[in-house]
Formats: sequence, structure tokens, C-alpha cells
Amino acid sequence: MTQKYVYFFGEGDTSDKKLLGGKGANLGSMTKIGLPVPPGFTITAKVCIEVNRTKKWPDGLLKQIEENVKRLEKKMNKHFGDNENPLLVSVRSGAAVSMPGMMDTVLNLGLNDEAVEGLAKQSGDDRFAWDSYRRFIQMFGDVVMGIEHARFEHELERVKNGRQDTDLDVSDLRKVVDAYKVLVRKEAGKLFPQDPMEQLKMSVDAVFNSWDNKRAITYRRLNGIPDDLGTAVNVQAMVFGNLGWDSGTGVGFTRNPATGENVLYGEYLMNAQGEDVVAGIRTPKHFEDMKKEMPESYKQLQKIRETLERNYKDMQDFEFTIENGKLYMLQTRDGKRTAAAAVKIAVDMVKEKLLTEDEAIMKMKPEQLDQLLHKQIDPESKKGTPIAKGLPASPGAAVGKAVFTAEEAAAIKEKNPKEKLVLVRTETSPEDIEGMNAAEGILTARGGMTSHAAVVARGMGKCCVAGCDGINVDEKAGRFRAGDTVIKAGDVISLDGSTGEVYKGALNLVEPGIGGDFAVLMKWVDKRKRLSVKTNADTPHDAQVAKDFGAEGIGLCRTEHMFFKPERIMAVREMILSETLDERKKALDKIRPMQKEDFKGLFKVMDGMPIIIRLLDPPLHEFLPHEEKETKEVADEMGISPQKIKNTIKALHEFNPMLGFRGCRLGVKYPEINEMQARAIFEAALESKKDGHKPIPYIEVPLVGNVKEFLLIRDIIEKVADELGVKGRIKYKIGTMIEVPRAAMTADEIAKEADFMSFGTNDLTQMGCGFSRDDAGKFLNIYVDKGIYERDPFQSIDQSGVGRLMEYCIEHARKVKPDIEIGICGEHGGEAESVKFCHRIGLNDVSCSPYRVPIARLAAAQAAIEEKR
Amino acid sequence: MTQKYVYFFGEGDTSDKKLLGGKGANLGSMTKIGLPVPPGFTITAKVCIEVNRTKKWPDGLLKQIEENVKRLEKKMNKHFGDNENPLLVSVRSGAAVSMPGMMDTVLNLGLNDEAVEGLAKQSGDDRFAWDSYRRFIQMFGDVVMGIEHARFEHELERVKNGRQDTDLDVSDLRKVVDAYKVLVRKEAGKLFPQDPMEQLKMSVDAVFNSWDNKRAITYRRLNGIPDDLGTAVNVQAMVFGNLGWDSGTGVGFTRNPATGENVLYGEYLMNAQGEDVVAGIRTPKHFEDMKKEMPESYKQLQKIRETLERNYKDMQDFEFTIENGKLYMLQTRDGKRTAAAAVKIAVDMVKEKLLTEDEAIMKMKPEQLDQLLHKQIDPESKKGTPIAKGLPASPGAAVGKAVFTAEEAAAIKEKNPKEKLVLVRTETSPEDIEGMNAAEGILTARGGMTSHAAVVARGMGKCCVAGCDGINVDEKAGRFRAGDTVIKAGDVISLDGSTGEVYKGALNLVEPGIGGDFAVLMKWVDKRKRLSVKTNADTPHDAQVAKDFGAEGIGLCRTEHMFFKPERIMAVREMILSETLDERKKALDKIRPMQKEDFKGLFKVMDGMPIIIRLLDPPLHEFLPHEEKETKEVADEMGISPQKIKNTIKALHEFNPMLGFRGCRLGVKYPEINEMQARAIFEAALESKKDGHKPIPYIEVPLVGNVKEFLLIRDIIEKVADELGVKGRIKYKIGTMIEVPRAAMTADEIAKEADFMSFGTNDLTQMGCGFSRDDAGKFLNIYVDKGIYERDPFQSIDQSGVGRLMEYCIEHARKVKPDIEIGICGEHGGEAESVKFCHRIGLNDVSCSPYRVPIARLAAAQAAIEEKR
Repeated sequence: MTQKYVYFFGEGDTSDKKLLGGKGANLGSMTKIGLPVPPGFTITAKVCIEVNRTKKWPDGLLKQIEENVKRLEKKMNKHFGDNENPLLVSVRSGAAVSMPGMMDTVLNLGLNDEAVEGLAKQSGDDRFAWDSYRRFIQMFGDVVMGIEHARFEHELERVKNGRQDTDLDVSDLRKVVDAYKVLVRKEAGKLFPQDPMEQLKMSVDAVFNSWDNKRAITYRRLNGIPDDLGTAVNVQAMVFGNLGWDSGTGVGFTRNPATGENVLYGEYLMNAQGEDVVAGIRTPKHFEDMKKEMPESYKQLQKIRETLERNYKDMQDFEFTIENGKLYMLQTRDGKRTAAAAVKIAVDMVKEKLLTEDEAIMKMKPEQLDQLLHKQIDPESKKGTPIAKGLPASPGAAVGKAVFTAEEAAAIKEKNPKEKLVLVRTETSPEDIEGMNAAEGILTARGGMTSHAAVVARGMGKCCVAGCDGINVDEKAGRFRAGDTVIKAGDVISLDGSTGEVYKGALNLVEPGIGGDFAVLMKWVDKRKRLSVKTNADTPHDAQVAKDFGAEGIGLCRTEHMFFKPERIMAVREMILSETLDERKKALDKIRPMQKEDFKGLFKVMDGMPIIIRLLDPPLHEFLPHEEKETKEVADEMGISPQKIKNTIKALHEFNPMLGFRGCRLGVKYPEINEMQARAIFEAALESKKDGHKPIPYIEVPLVGNVKEFLLIRDIIEKVADELGVKGRIKYKIGTMIEVPRAAMTADEIAKEADFMSFGTNDLTQMGCGFSRDDAGKFLNIYVDKGIYERDPFQSIDQSGVGRLMEYCIEHARKVKPDIEIGICGEHGGEAESVKFCHRIGLNDVSCSPYRVPIARLAAAQAAIEEKR
Repeated sequence: MTQKYVYFFGEGDTSDKKLLGGKGANLGSMTKIGLPVPPGFTITAKVCIEVNRTKKWPDGLLKQIEENVKRLEKKMNKHFGDNENPLLVSVRSGAAVSMPGMMDTVLNLGLNDEAVEGLAKQSGDDRFAWDSYRRFIQMFGDVVMGIEHARFEHELERVKNGRQDTDLDVSDLRKVVDAYKVLVRKEAGKLFPQDPMEQLKMSVDAVFNSWDNKRAITYRRLNGIPDDLGTAVNVQAMVFGNLGWDSGTGVGFTRNPATGENVLYGEYLMNAQGEDVVAGIRTPKHFEDMKKEMPESYKQLQKIRETLERNYKDMQDFEFTIENGKLYMLQTRDGKRTAAAAVKIAVDMVKEKLLTEDEAIMKMKPEQLDQLLHKQIDPESKKGTPIAKGLPASPGAAVGKAVFTAEEAAAIKEKNPKEKLVLVRTETSPEDIEGMNAAEGILTARGGMTSHAAVVARGMGKCCVAGCDGINVDEKAGRFRAGDTVIKAGDVISLDGSTGEVYKGALNLVEPGIGGDFAVLMKWVDKRKRLSVKTNADTPHDAQVAKDFGAEGIGLCRTEHMFFKPERIMAVREMILSETLDERKKALDKIRPMQKEDFKGLFKVMDGMPIIIRLLDPPLHEFLPHEEKETKEVADEMGISPQKIKNTIKALHEFNPMLGFRGCRLGVKYPEINEMQARAIFEAALESKKDGHKPIPYIEVPLVGNVKEFLLIRDIIEKVADELGVKGRIKYKIGTMIEVPRAAMTADEIAKEADFMSFGTNDLTQMGCGFSRDDAGKFLNIYVDKGIYERDPFQSIDQSGVGRLMEYCIEHARKVKPDIEIGICGEHGGEAESVKFCHRIGLNDVSCSPYRVPIARLAAAQAAIEEKR
């Protein structure tokens, strides 16, 4: 039996998104649950992959398509190419994972010189028929035949001759169609296809091809979507929102995607096709207006909203068209939402008994919380008036230099990753993805809350002000005008994504507060998670921020950050430039009281919580001046010759500093450094205790590769502890980083001696994979492009490689010390997939930067729920 | 019950060298088998470790020593400090492993103001007694009390006042004794101890301390002896070789240690103590003379020789003393020997049925074979006459710049490791160890075949000419005179260690031939070994040398070495500087025919044996010029601007090149490079086959960390193979290096796809331990000193760390492909301990440089025998 390549809507397992794609599955399931969906069929995603690989259609595919077309003709009682009652269809892509605006779509397929007459008869509207025909040729020519959109616009402008679209009559539109046909023959070297089946075959191929276009690949890479999913193709009977003023089209959400409020939310345009809404070319009306304009349709939408949420158990993003007063559902999918909305919706749905707490937690995207935790514009700094105001399309705030093309934004960011940019466009399109990614925020002159810019920005967690009518953007000249104000490329502006305000200059940003629904959700989260979530912090301020975000201790306090403070860097340099042990000790004695105060500050904030303090780690040359001028200044201040500093730098030079003289190797050679640090920690702890706090220092030895290194350093620390009489008074532990592969491989030996272990997965990845993070840029992109690594292993733990080292380490450490605490403190500790992996392999805790603590908590809870299932 | 700390000779298990030390065990066992050994007792090595740790004597030790002294007094019928019949003893160190000249010794202990009178009566020789007393004070003052040797010499010279030692009469010697006592009080701040028990206690402590002196530590480090063995102390009744002309002392070998000839071999001095022979101060007579001078003793020695070899089943190095015609054995141990002697002795002893073949193989020290494989002086180049001739003390040859102090030799070598040096000394002493290690060869003016220089040089496998009377060395001025010739520091000389000849200037060196006994031994070896031993070779010449040494294929052919040849480096540079694929391909097309010829050459030599050819590995910048002048030349020749070359170098610059853009990463980015190499290999193989050879190329992908990298490169190679129709005609394999920890950890995935694997343990050590080989010098010495690593992990595989990665890899690779061939091709492949480890973990083959092939074969056989036991 031939394989089943094509499914009529409602056929088969309509939950199989991998096969039918998200859109196809939903059209099928909407059909099943009785929603008014125009009939159609889905060609599976499996076919896409096969065709893209073999470059030909599998046997039987064409036949199955033809059969389904027949079924569709029968159901609609319309026929392809018929000059009385023609069947018109849309052809849309639909992958398993939503990729908004990424894939190409063809509408009105089936129109030809005959069918246009049929459509005219059918609709009783010649002008509509010929306008549809010219739109179809334009879209088909662009998307399927690859002729530049602008070429068609040019022909259209010629006929319009300065008039509006709506001023064109039927004879004008016939002229446009003729001109388009000539254009197609000239540009594509062949005639515009008149056979609807031929049109369909070509369109299906175009959708298949679009899976591998650059935009789609970029989107997949940015969103971690695998390349081998493929896209399904949905062929659906057309319904028309542009049949007159009792027709229209709209896009809605079952709840407010910006705030999460439980109300029907959306926009529509009368007498328009769907693309007009999404593309943001005309600014649509809000549903509020529909209540008055089309009360029946509005009531119907309210009912559909409930049906959808009951069925899909999530907030839905849907498209609909009203054809001569009759409403059709064209699409539904889980709606993108701001983090704030996601939180509110999750909590509300539990209250509404639509979801269990577990389900609500699982609906959350951990990475998205980042938005909630991002800075907002300080209300105090809003003294002037905004230069413009648009729609509050994606919350948060952005301050940056205006930039007017996506390419430029991407280029500037690549050159200087620290540059803050705001992308300003009349409207955005899928080609702009990389530029949007490079910007802090996006400002558009046209388009609504569901325009491309708004949807994508929300997905990215970036601030966006859309549909800002008051501005006039000249991309070519690189400037925009807002009233009397002109902002040129490079001028700094500020956006408030929550109010839609645009300001000239840089406003202050403030920390976000978290509470309300978020607090409720996080309470559920904390009930479920097993991992303890700590933070990486070196200052009382950061520690406090993290604690407010729910951190349960400090997982990594980097002592060297304290070394860089201006008032102590001199003493550090003296230490490095010392030629004798005595000189070195004298310099260290200057540093110790300062370090002690640092630790006291941390003990105070983290009262009763463990603080993992890592001993000095970086190579010493990092503390020395490297510029000629600075070298001279330092030499003068220290009363030595600049040559001496240069000599020391030369002596410290290494070919591969990553694998060089750093970490515990410093302490093995210069035990007095670690001795000073141990003394500062213990003295701080004793004094803190006297002040009524409960300090819990965990002293961590970095870059251990061999248990004997650890023993040497532990001895130094224990000797200080004995000397200061710490035992019995302070609860301390001495443990080690696991960042050298050899340490992971000899974890049994190390675990015998160490009280705790903490993975430094940055270095473990560097050494485990043999990549230098500073250099890997030269080839790592190619590696991700070619699929050698699915994701950048420095962003998300390489679970199948570095992860194995971790598993080996844990297994062997626990064999000799079953209750040894093992954590992770690299940057991976705040990345959701990595956190889940850490849960699965049985770590005790993860540590991450303060702002990522809630993300880690949520991911930890999701991992625990996944495990339970 | 108190522990037993002291064993009278013959008591206990006399094979327990760990407890009794080598010397103590042998004195005990010699006593047991009835050889004439002066009685005595041994304080165990365990005590040494305990005392050095606790800094005090354990309870009961003193009592046991006192009891054994009593027993000794009874046995000898002599008494400590007796003025009639005093007991005198020697106190000597003796560790489990022989450390010649490393440890301090005290002779004539027991002499004091009373006992000297007793000794005079006993020996009937006042002069002898007082000379012994003054020698004892001198030795005790130096070794036990730490007073400089030269201070005593100075006092002696004062009394001698220009006369010879032998001119001193009793009253002179009494004056010397008095002067010595004054010196001791002044220098040590206390009186010279008169109580023999006090003398003994102090001497025992001195021996214990000597375990941790710098010389001993250095020797242990150089010889890989663990620090926690400790040394036993042997206290033995003195016998005197300096009692007159019917007394004497000597050192012998049961066979010739230089050639292995089965004859009694040794030297002696009449009327002398043992130290006079070993120190090389007087040039001793050969045993041949003893036949005439003391025929009885000679006969006795012949018998002892047989007894010793029958008992110890090895060639022995023994010391003896003749006291008034009666012969005493003072020591025996396995004798150091040249590699040639070792081979002959092993083979002979099998013939003599003293050893089995297995035992003979186990007696060999693999590293020592290096000597046999070293170059010799080309007889053709010996046209002039030698400037001097000494004893052929250690075979081989050396050409290098004369250097006159050990410190200087070590310093020069450290600055420039490639510098070749010959150390020239009047005589050497244990302090010179590091300098001897730094030199290619050693030339001494004094001392015999058993002098310090000779013994140590043989142990090190270095060429040595000793006792070269014809030269006059002035270390201070840095020159020596040989007849009319003056050689100054820095002048080049050549030594022939097999003839004892010294030449001015540099003679040519030739490759050694191997055959005879060596061939017999290696036949036994090959019957036993399981590992296949291959070689690292890039040229037909090296391949031929290795094949002659028994290589069974090439385990690593580095293609990049071929890239550096002058006639092709230009094309390589063109390739690197290419901006387009076409340019790059054009440059590669120039390289391909040259590479093909290289491979054809190798296929011819290695007819029918596998050749593992590694694809391009190093970072590209290595091929570009780095000096200003060279850059300009290259730019001119290529017709481009020097700036372009500089820009490319800048673009290729990396912070950690070790972890950078190299290995298969080059091929992932530039597939055309590997495509060219595959083509060159297959074309060469096809042409070789046409020429009647049997080429077996194994193509190896370097620096794989992820199976997907391997798949990409394998596809490139397979495509070329298909294109050239290689399949079915050439037996080829495609495999991978395992040098990235991630590759070891994902060996199951890689083994599914790869035909073979080869460990690159250099890089695996770098990444596994997190050491950059170029930089580790900054701390690795300290690491070895502190015992963090017992040996430099770049010299001998870090079995407990990197070794675990290897074991994990093998286990997981074999799980999915049980018969996958796995080898090693790093420099460890020729180091005996590493080879044995490779055997134990189940590798199929090892590969090493041509000259180390026999070492690897021997080590492989020993590993197989050890496994069988």
C-alpha cells in the first residue's frame, strides 16, 4: 500500500504536529471540534523532508493531492478553473513548531483567465474578481516564481498613475493583469501558468523550498529548532474578507497577549485579506469596534474563544475571515505572549481550573522570564515629554543609538557586541530578524499589536513600540522626524515598551519588581523543584538582588573581582612583582583587610546561607597594566622601572593561557596567596558571627586536576583554620571546582577529600571539546550551521559530550561519598535546558547570575515535573 | 610487643628489600648462603620514614640497636671504645633501589682517644691506627656534623707542609687529629663525640637525613624512584684493606659490565680502603694483576662469582676487602651494565640455563636499549689521531662543546636544549649528576671503569671516557691540555666511548647496526608481545630505519611535514592566502602531485604494511612567514603585498592556538584541503599497486571531538574513493585520532563510524590535564617536585588520569565494535611504562619514533609476560 501523504482536515491523528505541522494539526482539530473552518487538506511534513532530499515527488503524492482536490471541489461544490463557480485555495506552510512569517504563502490559487470570470459571477463583483486575480499573479510571481515584489509594484504604479488603489476600476485592473503577465514571461522566461493543478504543484514545491531559505534557517538557529522537522503544506478553500463591507478579516488572541488579561483581544480590518492585518500596512481596528460594527460576529468570536481554550488548554492566537457576514476560522495556535502575560495566564488558568499547577508550570518558557526581570524606564527620569507615542507592543525598555536597517544593526553589533541599538523602521519584515536580534528595542511607524515587529519582539523578549503614526522614517537617509525633532542614525533614543512612549536621549533604567501572580507561580515552582538555586555574586548588592529573586545562597563568589578594585589593584600588582616571599607577604598583608570586609558584607546579606568562595583563579598577568602609558604610571607610583613590569609580563606570557599558570596552580607555587585568602575568609566569618550573623563559607579550590593539588591547598586552609580556632565555631567546607577533564575522571579520588564539588562548565567545555572560547568564533558558527553541534555548547551544555564527563564524575564521586554536594556555577547554570540536564543527572544545586535565578528555579521545577511524569 | 626495627645479618626475610634496603638484604642473604661477610645489622627503611616524619626515634629503637651492638661485640669478640680490642663499624645507607654514591657513609666508627690505642695494638701498626682515626674524624665531621671537607684538607695540608700523605709519621698524624678536634669544636660548636654509641646514633640520624638531601632527591627524580621508600642503615664490623701490603680492597663484576663477556671483571687497590677505588682518586689495577699478586684471593673470587650468580640469577656488582690476606665480601647488588652487555648477559644466561627466556626478557630495561640504538663514530671520519685515550667506560659516541663544570652544563642546556655538550672533569662526584645529565658524554682524567663517572654514565646510557691520564684538566680556567693541544670551553670535541678515544673537532656519527645476541633476544620478544609496534615516520628514509628496527607499519604519518618542504611551501601559502574557493583549489592542485609522490615512496618501503596517514593538522599560521624580511620575500615572490600576508596572520591569530582552528576543523571549513589529500593518497595507492606493491592506507582524521565532524570528513574521502574507483582494489580504512576528551567520552558514537582509532596522548594530556605543553614548564617542575605527578605526564602517560579517559574510550568503543583497532601514536608510544600500560588496557598497537621501536617491542613483551604471571 502506498503511504498516506495527504490528510483531509479532520482526518487522522490531529494531535500529530510532527506529521501535520502545527497549523495543519490545528485546522484538523478545529474541524473535528466543530468550529467553522474552510475545508482543505494537509500534505505532511515528512513529504517535505523527502522531497528536499531526493529532489523529486514520491510516487503516489500527485495522485493523493488530486483525489483531495476532488474531495474539496465536491465539498465546496466548486471546481478548479471553472468560469462559473471556481474553487480558489490558499497554500500555506506549517511546521511542527510555529515560525511566524518565516514561510511563504500563496493565496487565491486557482485563478486564471477563466476562473476570474467565474469569480466575478460568483461574487457579483467584477472589480473584486480582477483585483483578486492581479493580487494572485503578484503573489505567485513573487513567492513561487521568484520575481521581485517591487517589479509588480512598479507596473501597478504605472497604471495607477498617481491614483489610490481604490480608484482603479475593472479596466484598469485588467490592464494591470496584462502587464503582470508580460512581466512574468519576461522575468521568469515562461508564461504565467493557467492550469490550477500546475499552480498548485508549483506552490507546494515553493513551500517545500522555503523550508531551506535563509530566513527560515536563521529563525531556526535563533530558536533552536532542528533542521530535519520539515514543513507541512496546507491547501485550503479560500474565503474572502475583501468581498465588501460585510466582509473582513482579523487576528485575535483568546486573552490579552501583553498583559494576560482574560478578555478577547484582537484586531480586524473590514473588506481586507488577512495579510493586510499581519503585514501592518493598514492600521487595523480593535475588537471593541467590532462589538458595534458586527455584533453577531463578535458574539460568535466570544464563543469560539471559550471552545478554543477548553480544547487547547492554552491561550490561542487565531486568524479568521468574515465572508459576507459568515465567520470562518483560518488558523489557531498557542499564542505568543509577554512574560507578564504568560505568568498571569498560567495563574489564572489554574484558578479557572483549566490547568493544574503542574500544567501551568509546564506552560511557562523559562527563558522568557528574562523579560520580567529586565529593567524598566525609571519614572523619575521621564521629565521631558515623549517625542512620539505608539502602541505598547512589547514591554520592557530600551535605550540605544538609532539604526535604520537590519543589516547595519547586525554589522554594528558584530563589531562591538556592547553597543546598544534601537532599530527604527517604517515596518519590519522577516528579512529583518537578525537586525532585530541585534537591537535592544524596535520602533516602527506602521503596524499594530499583531504586526510582524510586535510578534517577533515579544517572542524575543525585546521592547517594541509599533504603529507609531507620529513619526516619519526615512531609512535611506538614516533619520526619522517626530514633529519638529529629527533623530539621525547614531542619536540615542529611549523606548518604553509598556506605554509606547519614545524619548530623545537616554533615560534611566530601573530594576524590575516581581510580585503578584509571579510570586504565586514561583511558590508553586519552589514546592516542586529539587535543585537548590544559588547565584554567582561578588558584591553585597548583587547578592541582595539575587536573594530578592529567590537565590538560596551564593554558588560562586569570584575573589579576583575584588582584586580589581582601584584601591587594591596596586597592592595586587606589588604582590605579583615581588621577588621574594617576604615582599609578597607584605603586599598580601595589605590586601587581606580589604578582602575581609568584602566577605563580611556578603555574610551579612546571605545570613545563614552557604557562600561558595573561589580562591584566586585568573592568570596573574591579567592584573598588570598592558598599555605603555598605564605601565609608566604604575611604575612611577610603585617606584620601579617600567622595564621591570614589562619583564614580568613577558615572563608571565603564555602560548595557551587557558591551559596555563592559573587556578590552584597559583596556590601550589605561591601558597601564601591562598593562605591570605583563607585568613580573610575565616576572620570575616568570626567577626560576622560576633555581629550576630550566621556565616557559612564554602571555600572552593579552582582548576583542580589532581587530588594532590587539592590536598596541598586544603592543608593551607586547614592550617589557618586551626590557627584562628575556627573549628566548632564556624560551619565551613572545603571543596573544589570540577573544570579540568582529569578532575572529572578522577572524581572518586577527589570526592574522598573534598566536602563539595562544583562544575565549572565553561572551562570543562573548553577543555572537554578542545575549543578556546576566545577563538572558537572562527569556526563554531560553521559548526552550528552544519549541525555538528545543535547549539553553541558555551550557551547550552553539550549534554552528549561534556555532559558525559559530568555524569561520570557524579557517578564516581557518589560511589565514595554518596551525600557529597555537587553543583554547577558556569554560565550554563542559568540556561533552562542546562538546568534541566543538571536536575536529571542528580546535581544538588545550580548557580547563575542574579537575573537568571527565577529562570533557573522555573526550569528546575519543570525538570522535577517531567521526571514525575 | 614492640616492632622489630633491627635485623642482624641473615635474620628475617633477606629478600625483603623494601624493609632492609638492597644492600642490607644482600648482606643478609650473602651471610645466609655462607659467603664471608663481616657481621653487622640493618636498621629498617621503615624506621627512616618514621623518623623523618616524626623527627624522633620510635620507642625501642635505641634498645634494639644496643642489643645488636652487643651481639656484634660478642661475635667479633671486640668492644666499642676498647683500648685493647676495639670494635669498629661502618655505617652505610641502603635503599630498596640502588642509588650509587647518592647516600652518605661513615667508616671506622667507634674510634676515639681510647680505641685508637686499641686499634694500634690490634693491628700492631701505630701509624695505621692514627691514620684511621684522623680519617674517621674527617669523615664524621663532614658527613655527620656538616663541616666542609675542604676545611679538614686544609688542616692536613698544614701538617703535611708539602709532603706526601705517606710521608706523615705517627706524631704528624697525632697533630692532625688534634687539629681536627679543634676544627670540629670551632665549626660545630661542640666537641667531637668520644662515646661510640653517641657516634653511632648521630651517624644513623645522618643517614636518615641524607635520604632527603638535594642530591638524593635529584637522583630519585631522574630515576623515577618514589620518595616514600626511605633508606635502611647498615652497621657492619669494619675490615681493613689498608693494613699493609697483604691487604687491599676491590670492586668487581661477575661479568664484564661493558661487553657482557662471561669473565670475572674488576679492579682493586692494595693497602687501601674501598672509598679509594670508587672515588677514582688512585687508578686501580685490573683483576688480571691479582692473579699474580694474590692468587688465592683471585681463586676465591672466582668461586664467589659463581655462588653469587647462582643465587641472585643476575650479574652482580660486588665490593670486597682483603684484610691481612683474608677476603671479606662487603656488598653485592645487581650490576649496572651497558645495553650491549645487558643483551649479551641475558642471552648467555639463557644458554647457561641460569634464566628462562621470559626471565631474560624481564631482566632487560627497555629504556636502556636506547644506548644500543644510538649513533657511533663513523670509522671513516677517524682520519686524524686522537688527542688522548682513556678507558672505554660507557659505549656510544658524543660530539659537543667542552664544558668544565656541571652547573655550567646544566645552565647552558636549560637555556638552549639543543646545545650538545661534553662534560670534562678531573673526576666527577654525586654533585655533578645534573650536569652529566645535560651532557652528551663525559670525559674524566682520573678514575677507572667503576668510578663515579663511569657507573653513572652507563646508567644514563651516555658515552663516557674515564681515567684519561693523558689530559690535564683546569676546571677553573675552563680548559684542558692533551699533549700540545689545548681545548677551551666551547671548543668541540668527540668521544668514542667504545674505544676510549678523544678527538678534537666534530667527527661524523653513524647509525648503529643491530644483530647477534640482540636479534636473538628480539626474536624471543616478538614471540611474546601482543601489541603491534608501528612507527611515526613521514619519509621513506625514516620508514626504512624503523622497519629495520622491527616496525610493523606506520602508526603516524604527519602529512604537514611534507608541506614544509621548500619547493611546496609556496603553494601551501598560496592556498592559505586564497580568497576564493577557486584560488584555493588551484593552489591545492599544485600540491597534490607532490604529496602523491611522498605517499608512493612510503607505500614502497612499507609494502604490505598499514600506513596511518593523518590529514592536515596544524593551525594554518604555522605555514606563513613570521619575520619581516621573510614576509617581504614571500610577498614579492607571490606578487602580493606584505600587508596581505600580515593581515592573514592577524586574522589567523588565536589566544589559545592549542584549542583553536586546526585538525579536522580545517577540513570542516575547507573541505577541498582534505579532498586533495584523499586524492593524493588514493592516486598514490593505485599507482603503487600497478608497480606491484601492496599499499594499505589508513586515513586518519585529527582532532575529532564529535562524530559528526568525522562523518563530514569521511564523506569527503569516500566521495574521492568512489570517483577513483578505489573500492575492491585498495584495502583502505578511515579512522580517527582520539585526542580531544570529548572524543574519548563519545567513543561509542565514533566507533560506530570509524574503522580505527589512535590515541594522540600528547594532546589528550594537554586537554585532559589542562596543561599547555609550551607553558607547563612554568609550574610542572614544581608539580613533580611536590609529587603531584610522579612523573612528567608528557613523558610517561598519566595512567591514573589521562589513562582513565583512554580506558573509558576503549570500553565504550569496543562495546559497539568489539574488533575495532585502537592504537597510540603520541610520544608516549615509545616510553616503556606507557607501552606496558597500553598493553594492559588492551590496545592493538603502539607507534613511536624509529629509534624507539625496539624499546617498545621489549616493553610490549615484558607487559605480556607480566600479564601471564
